[in-house]
Amino acid sequence: MTKLYGGMEGGGTKFICAVGSGPEEIVEEIRVPTTTPGETLGQAIAFFQKYNLSAIGLAPFGPLDLDATSPTYGSITATPKPGWAGTNVVAAFQRIFNVPLAFDLDVNAAAFGEHSWIPENQRLDSLVYFTIGTGIGAGFIVNGKVTHGLSHPEAGHMRLPHDRKKDPFPGTCPFHGDCFEGMASGPALASRWRKPGETLPDNHPAWELEAMYIAYALVNVILTVSPQRIVLGGGVMERRLLFPSIRGKVRGLLNGYLASTVLTGTMEEYIVPPALGKRSGVLGALALAKSVV
Amino acid sequence: MTKLYGGMEGGGTKFICAVGSGPEEIVEEIRVPTTTPGETLGQAIAFFQKYNLSAIGLAPFGPLDLDATSPTYGSITATPKPGWAGTNVVAAFQRIFNVPLAFDLDVNAAAFGEHSWIPENQRLDSLVYFTIGTGIGAGFIVNGKVTHGLSHPEAGHMRLPHDRKKDPFPGTCPFHGDCFEGMASGPALASRWRKPGETLPDNHPAWELEAMYIAYALVNVILTVSPQRIVLGGGVMERRLLFPSIRGKVRGLLNGYLASTVLTGTMEEYIVPPALGKRSGVLGALALAKSVV
Repeated sequence: MTKLYGGMEGGGTKFICAVGSGPEEIVEEIRVPTTTPGETLGQAIAFFQKYNLSAIGLAPFGPLDLDATSPTYGSITATPKPGWAGTNVVAAFQRIFNVPLAFDLDVNAAAFGEHSWIPENQRLDSLVYFTIGTGIGAGFIVNGKVTHGLSHPEAGHMRLPHDRKKDPFPGTCPFHGDCFEGMASGPALASRWRKPGETLPDNHPAWELEAMYIAYALVNVILTVSPQRIVLGGGVMERRLLFPSIRGKVRGLLNGYLASTVLTGTMEEYIVPPALGKRSGVLGALALAKSVV
Repeated sequence: MTKLYGGMEGGGTKFICAVGSGPEEIVEEIRVPTTTPGETLGQAIAFFQKYNLSAIGLAPFGPLDLDATSPTYGSITATPKPGWAGTNVVAAFQRIFNVPLAFDLDVNAAAFGEHSWIPENQRLDSLVYFTIGTGIGAGFIVNGKVTHGLSHPEAGHMRLPHDRKKDPFPGTCPFHGDCFEGMASGPALASRWRKPGETLPDNHPAWELEAMYIAYALVNVILTVSPQRIVLGGGVMERRLLFPSIRGKVRGLLNGYLASTVLTGTMEEYIVPPALGKRSGVLGALALAKSVV
């Protein structure tokens, strides 16, 4: 009999929970609004309890304590989200389930999902997944594995060139002002142009600027971990015209310095939308579950 | 009997060749000036031929073709160094030696040397080695392995914030102008202040600016691969006052966002000079040789 796994992607507005054995074999999937930890996790737990699962993958928003030797392993740490700081997600599940639990950041799960479920990505040694939406984050597969390091990447807070003459917007990040997220997240877009990004037409100068900041971030990632593929997801990236624009700017910024034919070409296979669409995270959580059995 | 290995670090001005079995067991070490490929590699080969070696590690300056499936694997590719573009270092050694050859970029070897020879680094899952001198480059150990990805990192060309009011210097990089190397390499320092960096006193404003650009680069690396240690080598870093200055600026730029106690502390054990001094590269090449036997 095929084993069943549980996968939970926990976002700031909703938690997506799925039970199944792979992207094409989902038995049931639910969405739970993110309210209080007790209520939201309670609903997720009740859902998973209906099934006989071999493992569960838990991938909430961060920052997280991923250090298995830490007394607070399994917790959401310093989130500004009311009521959630200090919530130990793993402990809540351990009290109920006697199966292996995988635990990682939502964007790490998304990177892992894109890497492990998509056949043409499986052969890649490295893949970076960015989500560009309400916040900006990234998951890094490097040397075949999800990267944690000291804690976990927080690539939304990279510092990028900011030409204040061209773009006087000071940025929205409460920690860093004009970091990547402060300049290019959905809320930054809305704040700069005083209307939601979704309402701006394709020919609005917002998109040119948006593509520029994203291109700067990608160039820095290309010059450091040299990934074999970059996947861009999240609400802002649903504006599909950003893709060709970002690819062109990345090529311009690299300026032929790296001889790789991937980088001097069209990059249509290099900088791509998520193959799993909006489900990279939850399917990644399912893949994490599968990986610990 | 202890096995003997050869290690070669190939730089723009000299090649360092060593024979031995470890940092404390070096049998002989020579320096060969970098002139023509035939002459320089010829001298290196003649040196190694004197010994009965189990393997040789070759770590020249880049950019390199590290793709083992490529017809030009083993070559230095688009270097501006006269006569060296297209030189196949591995092929030159393969014609003479019938032992395993390891081949990697000089900075990758340096990162590998610091990681593999230094006991307190061996337990680390990730370590980044930057050289900041005539050029700027970095080697990344991530998930326990040297990172190559699409080609290899070229972290000297990251784009960083550049406040042209505070620092109108346009940068020296022929490809990117004001990238990290264009703003903070030894030649950039000399060009901005119209005298060699070595001649500038400790209280010269050059060092404050230099520390700032380095801090920006490190912050971007911390926010992406989240390394467990950062080693800073190269000629510019011999100005030791840069270390406390960089640590303070990194802390200021992160602004408490990452809760890691490593990053909110003094970082004296986190951002460090090379434990192997100026020999990280050649000893790393030796470690690469050992790793392929």
